[in-house]
Amino acid sequence: MNNILDKEDFKVIKKGVTFPKGIKAAGIKCGIRFNKKDLALIYSEKVADAWGTFTTNKFKAAPLVVTEKNLSLSGGKLQAILINSGIANACTGERGLKDAWETVNYVSEGLKIEKEYVAVTSTGKIGEFLLMNKIKDGLKEAISELSVSGGTEAAEAILTTDTKKKEIAVCFKLGEQEVKIGGMAKGSGMIHPDMATMLGFITSDISIKGELLQEALQRVVEKTFNMISVDGDTSTNDMVLFIANGLAGNKIIDKKGADYYKFLEALQYVAEYLAKCIAKDGEGATKMIEVEVQSAVSFGEAKKIAKAVINSPLVKTAVFGKDPNWGRILAAVGYSGVEVIPDKIDLYLKEKIVENGQPLMFSRQKLHEYLESSDEIKIIIDLKMGEVNATAWGCDLTYDYIKINTKYN
Amino acid sequence: MNNILDKEDFKVIKKGVTFPKGIKAAGIKCGIRFNKKDLALIYSEKVADAWGTFTTNKFKAAPLVVTEKNLSLSGGKLQAILINSGIANACTGERGLKDAWETVNYVSEGLKIEKEYVAVTSTGKIGEFLLMNKIKDGLKEAISELSVSGGTEAAEAILTTDTKKKEIAVCFKLGEQEVKIGGMAKGSGMIHPDMATMLGFITSDISIKGELLQEALQRVVEKTFNMISVDGDTSTNDMVLFIANGLAGNKIIDKKGADYYKFLEALQYVAEYLAKCIAKDGEGATKMIEVEVQSAVSFGEAKKIAKAVINSPLVKTAVFGKDPNWGRILAAVGYSGVEVIPDKIDLYLKEKIVENGQPLMFSRQKLHEYLESSDEIKIIIDLKMGEVNATAWGCDLTYDYIKINTKYN
Repeated sequence: MNNILDKEDFKVIKKGVTFPKGIKAAGIKCGIRFNKKDLALIYSEKVADAWGTFTTNKFKAAPLVVTEKNLSLSGGKLQAILINSGIANACTGERGLKDAWETVNYVSEGLKIEKEYVAVTSTGKIGEFLLMNKIKDGLKEAISELSVSGGTEAAEAILTTDTKKKEIAVCFKLGEQEVKIGGMAKGSGMIHPDMATMLGFITSDISIKGELLQEALQRVVEKTFNMISVDGDTSTNDMVLFIANGLAGNKIIDKKGADYYKFLEALQYVAEYLAKCIAKDGEGATKMIEVEVQSAVSFGEAKKIAKAVINSPLVKTAVFGKDPNWGRILAAVGYSGVEVIPDKIDLYLKEKIVENGQPLMFSRQKLHEYLESSDEIKIIIDLKMGEVNATAWGCDLTYDYIKINTKYN
Repeated sequence: MNNILDKEDFKVIKKGVTFPKGIKAAGIKCGIRFNKKDLALIYSEKVADAWGTFTTNKFKAAPLVVTEKNLSLSGGKLQAILINSGIANACTGERGLKDAWETVNYVSEGLKIEKEYVAVTSTGKIGEFLLMNKIKDGLKEAISELSVSGGTEAAEAILTTDTKKKEIAVCFKLGEQEVKIGGMAKGSGMIHPDMATMLGFITSDISIKGELLQEALQRVVEKTFNMISVDGDTSTNDMVLFIANGLAGNKIIDKKGADYYKFLEALQYVAEYLAKCIAKDGEGATKMIEVEVQSAVSFGEAKKIAKAVINSPLVKTAVFGKDPNWGRILAAVGYSGVEVIPDKIDLYLKEKIVENGQPLMFSRQKLHEYLESSDEIKIIIDLKMGEVNATAWGCDLTYDYIKINTKYN
């Protein structure tokens, strides 16, 4: 296997969603996008426990409505996920809903599985209807191409303005059994009237009790996918789906013991890796920015501050301009809406540059060099108020962001 | 006089803060900025009723702390306002506070007025100390140059990255007396580690009871200065100050009768004019964007939606790209955090283009031409839920915004 990193409790593998046992996938060109893969299918041999999290945008796209409904009808089970790129099927009213249900039928008939075990997702232009014939024909091809090595093609087919495919896998031992997790994601902004959306798909062969799975996923999503921001625009189609088919054969995890925490750690790694890939591949980005808020009173407050800083156009342009502009960072902390004590705050950019709310002597030139030479910029804000930390990821704001979002026609 | 517009109840005049009776001003070069006016002084012959509103940023700059304190010590009275540009005196700790109090002393001694009748404000770089000798010497010159025609020089001296000075005046009759209001403002973003800040100064010779004045100003500021956004970054130094010296000689306004509403309307015009000037002059802006949210349940909700749309980088870049990208507008409505009914929403961009949440047939080319040829783009979002409207102003997001905010060294 293709180890790229050995962690204490798990191995990181350069694979994706088809790494776990019993998961197949395919990614093909169905003709929605011009000469690009645009239809992905993930299939689990065995009905899997499933959990999903959906956009908070009030304009929830039709496929999200349908998938949520199916998850509820099936009591949290899935066997197949169909994803198309190019058209988001959002703001499409009754017809959009009908189309989404119709794609569920196609998948159910094509794979001979129950309808309620099918999830459908879309990413692409808002306000356009799905090209149903292309999806119908494309699906036949995708089904015929399903394979245990199809993860990479699937990871390609879900991309829109992304510049790189995003996939990762890990494995770890529970007792004698090897358990695997694989994931893929897409997301880079919300563009071309509107190549929207962050999508994340994580598969596993682990055996775990439903409620523990949900709790683990909620916790992990909150600290990973929900902590990234490219432009502060929440898409109509954001979705993360997780399926676990139990084929690893591990003793089912039914309490929060050592096995649960081992799983949680591995899952956190996969989700964080994918989330950071999205931040790095933000539209026009040249650098990833990581903001860690330390010693907050609550996670909610730490998150609010980290998000305010990561979303500040002035912080983002300062990083692009390679300027250690600490004033912009503190100003964002100050308007985050959280009660902070300005005179207590320390700020680190490679080194400590602000102590108790006031600038220290530091070499602007040295920090300029750090900002110039590093692809990943780390900002630490120590509030010295409580004991909770939060980390958010984003990217710089560049000429290319403007270009991508104005010159897309 | 130089009428530029006749409204039903008031006249609009091309003048500024020295238009009302008994108000003098000056704007000079004291040497903080290179060869640019950087020190402004406003003086009222008679002690004036005053009211101020200050940034909500937790890193409140020293001059704001001092001015708030003075307003409280004097029971809401002011006679002089000193403004310097170039250095914000923010994040400067004890020494910054000491310096701000010291400038109060200079003004008090120079003009021979009570200390608590002095307001001081600063805009410019965060984290740098005021150049006290330059301010001290410059103040002497400013005092010697105080004049009833000095409003324009003052309006110039408060600018930083602004490209245009922003001033306006109105007059109207109350009984036999002519009452005047004049105003100036600055603001364009938060830049050069950090040419921060929106500042607004409005003067009048009206006679009005303190609590009515406060109420009127709060109402007007909420609907004007608080409804603009260039980049969503709230400065450490934002401030609006209003003074009214009563020299017009009108019968004092002591109830909410016709006179009060006439004043309110005129004041609203001045504040809205200045606020729109700031939005138009946003860093790198080529177009002003006006977002009107109609038929909301409350002003708070209407404001939240209007601000979400005006702050969306995707809406802003779409306007710069001259693309009638309604999907981005609806998406911003959807993530604003307000409970809306997507299937009810109508959207207008010159004409109605979305009805009940779904796109109508419209000519993309015609709207492209509208976006290309108009300097002021109007977006109307009709929620069809309640009876309250709100309007917000902002600007497009362009290559020049990135340039201004990265290439400032």
